[in-house]
Amino acid sequence: MFGPVLGIDPGLSRCGYGAVVVDGARCDALACGVLRTDPADDLPTRLAALAADLEELVAELAPSVIAVERVLFQVNVRTAMSVGQASGLLLSIAGREGIPVVQYSPNEVKLAVAGDGSAGKEEVQAMVVRLLRLAEVPRPPDAADALALALCHAWQAPLRQATAEPAAGVARDRLDAAITAAMARQRASGGAAR
Amino acid sequence: MFGPVLGIDPGLSRCGYGAVVVDGARCDALACGVLRTDPADDLPTRLAALAADLEELVAELAPSVIAVERVLFQVNVRTAMSVGQASGLLLSIAGREGIPVVQYSPNEVKLAVAGDGSAGKEEVQAMVVRLLRLAEVPRPPDAADALALALCHAWQAPLRQATAEPAAGVARDRLDAAITAAMARQRASGGAAR
Repeated sequence: MFGPVLGIDPGLSRCGYGAVVVDGARCDALACGVLRTDPADDLPTRLAALAADLEELVAELAPSVIAVERVLFQVNVRTAMSVGQASGLLLSIAGREGIPVVQYSPNEVKLAVAGDGSAGKEEVQAMVVRLLRLAEVPRPPDAADALALALCHAWQAPLRQATAEPAAGVARDRLDAAITAAMARQRASGGAAR
Repeated sequence: MFGPVLGIDPGLSRCGYGAVVVDGARCDALACGVLRTDPADDLPTRLAALAADLEELVAELAPSVIAVERVLFQVNVRTAMSVGQASGLLLSIAGREGIPVVQYSPNEVKLAVAGDGSAGKEEVQAMVVRLLRLAEVPRPPDAADALALALCHAWQAPLRQATAEPAAGVARDRLDAAITAAMARQRASGGAAR
């Protein structure tokens, strides 16, 4: 019914991506990996290469929504500039293609996936493996982070949609459905998620 | 002999541009203005609009080089992120088209154009008017800033090229030519520039 949710952890050297297909309470990994650019190239060449790779990725996966990591204001200016350059490319492609973009902070992702906003990287990765029934932790970690972003959106979106619904009757039905799905997910993961 | 020098002062709400044609000691303004995006639109839509405008601008002006304002690390993270998003789009277009990009700090621009690294905005704008023999200060200020960036590059490039030249004889000739041109410019502007 929906295109996949594409999670992107933007970066110039390594840009993680992970796509999940959502079907009710079930999420399946569709693709994940890392787009890299060569640090030996100059900045315009690297950004052009990243833009081309992102265009190809979006065209291939045809996501219905893109979940991006929100940059926290604790990072330094140099990092913010670099992440801004990479995320700007992604957002402009999404805007051109009319694909909605939702941002999540690292804490929101941890809370949604591992049930704890201060969970460690390993805990989040272990939950990604469990929730998507993967054989092992996706490598490199950027790919697992991107899958966690996609999962975070997949789980929050039904609740958000239901609670934002203006027609009360419909909202109630959707909210019920979202809660039922969330409970099913919780049972499937042994109660550890949320 | 060369395509124009395109100066860009990157920004999401207002992105200034200014192109100058260089012919020996003479610089002429070819175009200047501001690309704007609608603050009422969401970020992906605005970045997509800016990317389309920048592509059109670069295709139309066919610059041989793009001079961009270097972001200082004194700015805050929010500003750096936003400028990064706008500049990332520009740099990726330049990289794809094989157009070299040179960055200049605000102080380098002031020093090159007004002869004083701590010159005020009005001084720099007045020198842009004088050096390009314009009837009035280009509006809005972002357009004048972008012309100043282009002028800064137009004046520094011959010296840079000459001093970076590996063959000493050729270097000496180019350096002489660059110094002669710089002196001619200084006379033309009444000695105020550099």
